[in-house]
Amino acid sequence: MERTYFRIEKDSLGQKAVSQDVYYGAQTLRALENFPITEIPIHKELILALAEVKKAAALANMCTSMLPEKIGEAIVSAADEVIDGKYADQFVVDSIQGGAGTSINMNMNEVLANIALEKLGREKGDYDFCSPNTHVNMSQSTNDTIPTALKIASYRMAQELITTMTTLKIELMKKEAEFQSVLKMGRTHLQDAVPIRLSQEFGAYSEVVGRDIRRIKQAAEEMLSVNLGATAVGTGLNAKPEYVEKAVTQLSAQLGIKLHLAKDLVDGTQNTDGYTTLSAVLKVSAMNLSKICNDIRMMASGPMTGLREIKLPAKQPGSSIMPGKVNPVMIEVVNQVAFQVAGNDQSICMASEAGQFELNVMGPVIIFNLLQSLKIMNNGLDVFTRYAINGMEANVERCREYVEESYGIITALNPHLGYEAAAKVVKQATETGLTIKEICTKHELLPEKELDIILDPREMTTPGIAGSEFLTKK
Amino acid sequence: MERTYFRIEKDSLGQKAVSQDVYYGAQTLRALENFPITEIPIHKELILALAEVKKAAALANMCTSMLPEKIGEAIVSAADEVIDGKYADQFVVDSIQGGAGTSINMNMNEVLANIALEKLGREKGDYDFCSPNTHVNMSQSTNDTIPTALKIASYRMAQELITTMTTLKIELMKKEAEFQSVLKMGRTHLQDAVPIRLSQEFGAYSEVVGRDIRRIKQAAEEMLSVNLGATAVGTGLNAKPEYVEKAVTQLSAQLGIKLHLAKDLVDGTQNTDGYTTLSAVLKVSAMNLSKICNDIRMMASGPMTGLREIKLPAKQPGSSIMPGKVNPVMIEVVNQVAFQVAGNDQSICMASEAGQFELNVMGPVIIFNLLQSLKIMNNGLDVFTRYAINGMEANVERCREYVEESYGIITALNPHLGYEAAAKVVKQATETGLTIKEICTKHELLPEKELDIILDPREMTTPGIAGSEFLTKK
Amino acid sequence: MERTYFRIEKDSLGQKAVSQDVYYGAQTLRALENFPITEIPIHKELILALAEVKKAAALANMCTSMLPEKIGEAIVSAADEVIDGKYADQFVVDSIQGGAGTSINMNMNEVLANIALEKLGREKGDYDFCSPNTHVNMSQSTNDTIPTALKIASYRMAQELITTMTTLKIELMKKEAEFQSVLKMGRTHLQDAVPIRLSQEFGAYSEVVGRDIRRIKQAAEEMLSVNLGATAVGTGLNAKPEYVEKAVTQLSAQLGIKLHLAKDLVDGTQNTDGYTTLSAVLKVSAMNLSKICNDIRMMASGPMTGLREIKLPAKQPGSSIMPGKVNPVMIEVVNQVAFQVAGNDQSICMASEAGQFELNVMGPVIIFNLLQSLKIMNNGLDVFTRYAINGMEANVERCREYVEESYGIITALNPHLGYEAAAKVVKQATETGLTIKEICTKHELLPEKELDIILDPREMTTPGIAGSEFLTKK
Amino acid sequence: MERTYFRIEKDSLGQKAVSQDVYYGAQTLRALENFPITEIPIHKELILALAEVKKAAALANMCTSMLPEKIGEAIVSAADEVIDGKYADQFVVDSIQGGAGTSINMNMNEVLANIALEKLGREKGDYDFCSPNTHVNMSQSTNDTIPTALKIASYRMAQELITTMTTLKIELMKKEAEFQSVLKMGRTHLQDAVPIRLSQEFGAYSEVVGRDIRRIKQAAEEMLSVNLGATAVGTGLNAKPEYVEKAVTQLSAQLGIKLHLAKDLVDGTQNTDGYTTLSAVLKVSAMNLSKICNDIRMMASGPMTGLREIKLPAKQPGSSIMPGKVNPVMIEVVNQVAFQVAGNDQSICMASEAGQFELNVMGPVIIFNLLQSLKIMNNGLDVFTRYAINGMEANVERCREYVEESYGIITALNPHLGYEAAAKVVKQATETGLTIKEICTKHELLPEKELDIILDPREMTTPGIAGSEFLTKK
Repeated sequence: MERTYFRIEKDSLGQKAVSQDVYYGAQTLRALENFPITEIPIHKELILALAEVKKAAALANMCTSMLPEKIGEAIVSAADEVIDGKYADQFVVDSIQGGAGTSINMNMNEVLANIALEKLGREKGDYDFCSPNTHVNMSQSTNDTIPTALKIASYRMAQELITTMTTLKIELMKKEAEFQSVLKMGRTHLQDAVPIRLSQEFGAYSEVVGRDIRRIKQAAEEMLSVNLGATAVGTGLNAKPEYVEKAVTQLSAQLGIKLHLAKDLVDGTQNTDGYTTLSAVLKVSAMNLSKICNDIRMMASGPMTGLREIKLPAKQPGSSIMPGKVNPVMIEVVNQVAFQVAGNDQSICMASEAGQFELNVMGPVIIFNLLQSLKIMNNGLDVFTRYAINGMEANVERCREYVEESYGIITALNPHLGYEAAAKVVKQATETGLTIKEICTKHELLPEKELDIILDPREMTTPGIAGSEFLTKK
Repeated sequence: MERTYFRIEKDSLGQKAVSQDVYYGAQTLRALENFPITEIPIHKELILALAEVKKAAALANMCTSMLPEKIGEAIVSAADEVIDGKYADQFVVDSIQGGAGTSINMNMNEVLANIALEKLGREKGDYDFCSPNTHVNMSQSTNDTIPTALKIASYRMAQELITTMTTLKIELMKKEAEFQSVLKMGRTHLQDAVPIRLSQEFGAYSEVVGRDIRRIKQAAEEMLSVNLGATAVGTGLNAKPEYVEKAVTQLSAQLGIKLHLAKDLVDGTQNTDGYTTLSAVLKVSAMNLSKICNDIRMMASGPMTGLREIKLPAKQPGSSIMPGKVNPVMIEVVNQVAFQVAGNDQSICMASEAGQFELNVMGPVIIFNLLQSLKIMNNGLDVFTRYAINGMEANVERCREYVEESYGIITALNPHLGYEAAAKVVKQATETGLTIKEICTKHELLPEKELDIILDPREMTTPGIAGSEFLTKK
Repeated sequence: MERTYFRIEKDSLGQKAVSQDVYYGAQTLRALENFPITEIPIHKELILALAEVKKAAALANMCTSMLPEKIGEAIVSAADEVIDGKYADQFVVDSIQGGAGTSINMNMNEVLANIALEKLGREKGDYDFCSPNTHVNMSQSTNDTIPTALKIASYRMAQELITTMTTLKIELMKKEAEFQSVLKMGRTHLQDAVPIRLSQEFGAYSEVVGRDIRRIKQAAEEMLSVNLGATAVGTGLNAKPEYVEKAVTQLSAQLGIKLHLAKDLVDGTQNTDGYTTLSAVLKVSAMNLSKICNDIRMMASGPMTGLREIKLPAKQPGSSIMPGKVNPVMIEVVNQVAFQVAGNDQSICMASEAGQFELNVMGPVIIFNLLQSLKIMNNGLDVFTRYAINGMEANVERCREYVEESYGIITALNPHLGYEAAAKVVKQATETGLTIKEICTKHELLPEKELDIILDPREMTTPGIAGSEFLTKK
Repeated sequence: MERTYFRIEKDSLGQKAVSQDVYYGAQTLRALENFPITEIPIHKELILALAEVKKAAALANMCTSMLPEKIGEAIVSAADEVIDGKYADQFVVDSIQGGAGTSINMNMNEVLANIALEKLGREKGDYDFCSPNTHVNMSQSTNDTIPTALKIASYRMAQELITTMTTLKIELMKKEAEFQSVLKMGRTHLQDAVPIRLSQEFGAYSEVVGRDIRRIKQAAEEMLSVNLGATAVGTGLNAKPEYVEKAVTQLSAQLGIKLHLAKDLVDGTQNTDGYTTLSAVLKVSAMNLSKICNDIRMMASGPMTGLREIKLPAKQPGSSIMPGKVNPVMIEVVNQVAFQVAGNDQSICMASEAGQFELNVMGPVIIFNLLQSLKIMNNGLDVFTRYAINGMEANVERCREYVEESYGIITALNPHLGYEAAAKVVKQATETGLTIKEICTKHELLPEKELDIILDPREMTTPGIAGSEFLTKK
């Protein structure tokens, strides 16, 4: 049997025995006991961002001579390793936790302190030499480091999402180009309306995705305003002005992202509207995408009993019981991502509304949901683009048949006959099974030559009154 | 020009000039100034219920000799007139207002006091004689009368809704009976699955509506527990025990509804879980109904370019531009009601979570949304039943064609060929355009006679393995 | 008894007897029968905007010689009267209705046609002469006029809201200036944190309101892109290009608002993301405001058993049973507005997601909720500013006492003693009842002169390390 | 370097190379490629429940002689191992995925087939001998096995939650008993109301938790109705009636839970209202708990600048910067759980509404959120009870002071003086700083002896009119 060695760590509430194997300490242990909630760890993107914050803070503290060089260097070096993906298993606190992220911050402080201690040739836990609070957390508070890390993580994940959505938009535009000549019936209320081109539908999808990209970009810009240096309540207590300036500059340089200090740090510490805004635009986009997905699933419905206007790439057998069945799974997954993002937005909103005075202590649940929304939208849209939009084909024949069979073209006769007379024509057509043209000819409503021009469905897909030359002559 | 006469009313904040024409007083006037929010008045169902509460309270106060007979009788008589629908225009405060309903309660107290005063041969405003607070509101608080009124209104509206939904369920069952022989293709993922009868779909709709009725019934039962007599914080301060007992008994008798006093009045005053529960089941039902409506709209899609499995009664011209277009408007309205109910539930939940200590002061927004949900579900489902379910017809021919054209029947061959071999058959059928039976015969997979039995689509709509007799013999 | 005269109107579904008193016609009547849902009429702001659209369309149709001058002029004149607020009682269709707004559009078309007919010396109902569809609705569809009207109404109401919120921001800034010297304890987790100035809190509130204004402005800009001329599905069928150009220009001129035609009309007709975006930012703002209101209600809690940091103007007696009670009703109403806006956003999102193919038929429920959110935020924030922010006073004494009593100033000692030693000091202070300074002096941790500088609470409200000069000398 | 061996598996879409190390197969691999969405695996509770379903199905298939004994026994044995927690790392598909759970079902089918094959002395992948579809999935469909597994998992987790909540309720009742004599001021609108006992507040909390338990119990009962045997669309195609009966009986016996077959299997397959109902009551409870938590956090606010009515056990240092700070983290975590549950309910509702025809394909996102809600409520309430309710102490002194200082007791004078006169008394008290009693005595409103009885705050916490004997004598 393996023997485990423990070290004894102390915090203001007493002692904790911590396994010598681990780099986290007493406060992380307390968090593990207190918060066994979701069994899902903190998003790694937040951990990496927080390590960046710690590195920048240490460098800034060294600059302002608050932190001794030697200790500072060890902390920076420890942070660099975490940034490189090492020690990932040492970040163990739960995604939902009380305390506004203090346990996340302390988990990081403890891990960095202990890595630094080892680098300095000391034992883990020798906090008099290098303390999680006094040294690693110097000039900082959970209330500025965690929001700053969240903003960095959100910004970076939003950029990734924007890239993915830009690819999606491009692929939708390619389909627009490809489907230029595919004439089909437009539908409103799921009822035959008037002719439209399949390309026009995909063009519209690409437009709305384009707007979503713009909105996400804009909301992501809000993430660039950080409150590092605000410390506990935004007043900057215990943070030297030189430190504050240096820390943000340093952090920006590290990340290659133009962060800036919030204009009002009390505001920047107390308010979470940046997150709710980002989440809100993600939800708006999710609703748009879900609508597009619903359309695509309806268009692809079949193979025999559906609309069958398009054909999706087959990605996996669709049923464990029905042989040969193939389902639009790559579309369904985006619908589900959309519902998840909508629910996450709900959680974020309620958490945001629950802020009180100088702080919103519901940070962890905001982090959990906001970063999840960014991640699953990115992942979902990536496979959606590659596995569903790419390779999608139009059923040109079927689309054409719909146009031929439907009475929707009657609308083009309005300017020539009036709405009321046109309504009678379509009624007779429905009753008799004759075509619109046949009814018009039979009742000598318009000359056949004019009808051919007026009733050309392809012309109906661009603005204008077909046969308007016949009107003016009358 | 008409001259207006005013009376001067006083409350603890000072004087207000009140038009002699109106029965409400100073506090109502203050509420009008303070809360010009939605421009939508309080639901009349709440006003009527509150008048019932006031009547019961007056009678109980007379019983316990707290309220002089003469004044009590005048108040009861005033309440009776309001219950009869008179003075409806005197209830003028806004649906969204601060103060936990105090302005609604005082609007009622003032109107009843002034009606009573007139009945007693006094001038409006002579509150020394009959006061809105001391007499009409005797032994009461906003914090018990408003919740009690809300529970009465909710209960009564829920009963109406249950009746409407029961009719809907019956009509769905009639359709189930009517569509017994209509064979169609079942769809999963909007893709052809296996045969089903249209009646089975409507049977399933009626089942879920049945469960919704049961849930709403159950949640409505919670409305029967009232906190009348709890007064300000649930301790019953200033309410004699005899009054409390009498008031609830009297109220029950008036309404013909078996109300009972909440077991714990502090609980009954502070908590709003009864409303969130009722709203929650309304939302659950709304989601079910929206799903049914989505199905119906898809089934009715057409006339040429949709699924056209059913035909809905035409209720209004569908378009201001497209002649002859008819849309499933009676279905769409239920979808919208469902979305509204879901949003209302959201408002109610947030309002409920915002309760603090002894009271939830967000009562008005809860009332506004809960009663609206009950009302629009009732109204929406009533016209849905009468104008869309009634008169709906199956397109038997079209449904039959789908079964004939689809390869979904392949599933019945699994037990005979195995899933993997069956998958090959359907693949060949798709590629060649031959039928399942033709492929099987061509490859001599099964004798034609057996195939005829196994592939009978009608048999596939009930549990069992078609042709299982051929299996056992092997 | 009064005799009622009826005219017989016909539409494609048959005849309807319409009272001669009313200006609406058969299709409005059908809508009344079909949709008795909320009993709340369409927002008047939408009606006025739609009348503007009809006027612009008529003028554009006259320009392109599609509409005879005489009839066109009568329609324009009719529209002008509606814009002036006349005939308001003729717009009777329900806020929740099936049909994507067709009933709203037809209600307007019928009313304008009949007013125009009277102006032309004709009888109401003489639609051969001036038809709701052929003339009033010429070159239009519900699918372009209703969205255009919604965008106009939203834009105008958003501008009003922005004005109201700007006033709120200014008043918050005035409080910031007024409370500059009010020192209090900051709170995080509702636990004593470190000193802050009341002005800093109000400054933070004004900042977040400022961001909300900016976001609403931005989202409102999206309302300027209209699809007038898109007609049924966005292809512009039956709308001459000259008409389209003229109509939007004319409409802009009428309104004094720079509308522009959507770049892609199919997109502009099918997608509702502009509304969900506007609603989303309203919700974000609502959550911010609710948080501010929660703070204010806590700060104003009392008079004896609460925090009592501020005092609100008394706006109405707070209780029907508790004499002298005054409640923060003007704050509570904003909380409720916020919950309503959040719920409305939920309804709008679900409705938006339910769009299908060329149209979102859930328009009416979107209109109902979006315009309500704009309206109640505007109304609520107006009275909130005037009746609660104005006249709010600080309880300077009480705030000061908190600073003196609390141990939160300990944080300033971190740089001097280290976090761990400081924690011990505060522990001893709590146990002994001595002050921080007394403990430090007793244990000779720092000279008294230094402590006076380090522990000055006022200094703690700006960035920096108090007494950092003592650090460097060491 | 380690060499990896692969086997080639085939499905209807082609071949996949599968590592010999893994027990899953081609379809699982496809799912991994298609759905790299959340990076969170399926809840283990669902996996275990699904293994139970597979075992029961295999046994039932053996009973009806559809499945050869030898193969059946191997499948049962394989399922038993999974139920015992083995092979947990083989269930690798993502929590959000397209396909209604087909990938979960196939992941299980493949793992069981390969375990079984090894038990039978065969190679993994030898599916002709024991096939994931033909044998493991015999008589089953994703559409019946996954819902059945979800119901089992939900039911079991709900039972655990009920146990946890029952403990919570008991602990709240213990506090009620403990706080019986702690008199404090009740608050409405965060303003002083009338006296109440702290025990009454905790009694009210225990009552609402009790109702929540009852609601969750009731909703969990709905989980007992399963559709096993419904196969693809609820018609039971390919499931022998004897199988269906046997499968559910067997499953019930295995689990010791009284499952029953849904009365209407088409309904049971298409509808997800059971899940939305369970989620809805979880949300209702979450809102109640969040309200309780908000109260507790306010009561515990301090140590110096808050209400300080109660004291919570210290569970971890509260701040990385503020020494000695202790925060109510065990309460905050429940608030966050509540917000998460509310968001999850939103996702579940939208997913439920998105069902179409015979199936709701959004099952995975429903599973993800519903089981998460059950899990985090259970985990959160467990630590809340143990770490926050246990060990909570009343600050009796502070509570008493509030009663003494406040004017709220004035309400007891209403029956004696009338509301209006009482309002004047409190006004004077506020202005002069005198007590209520002093004012009354000074103005000789009531004899001192009577005042002592009427103004006894402890009497005010039970129903009745204090000093009513003095009333009647007048």
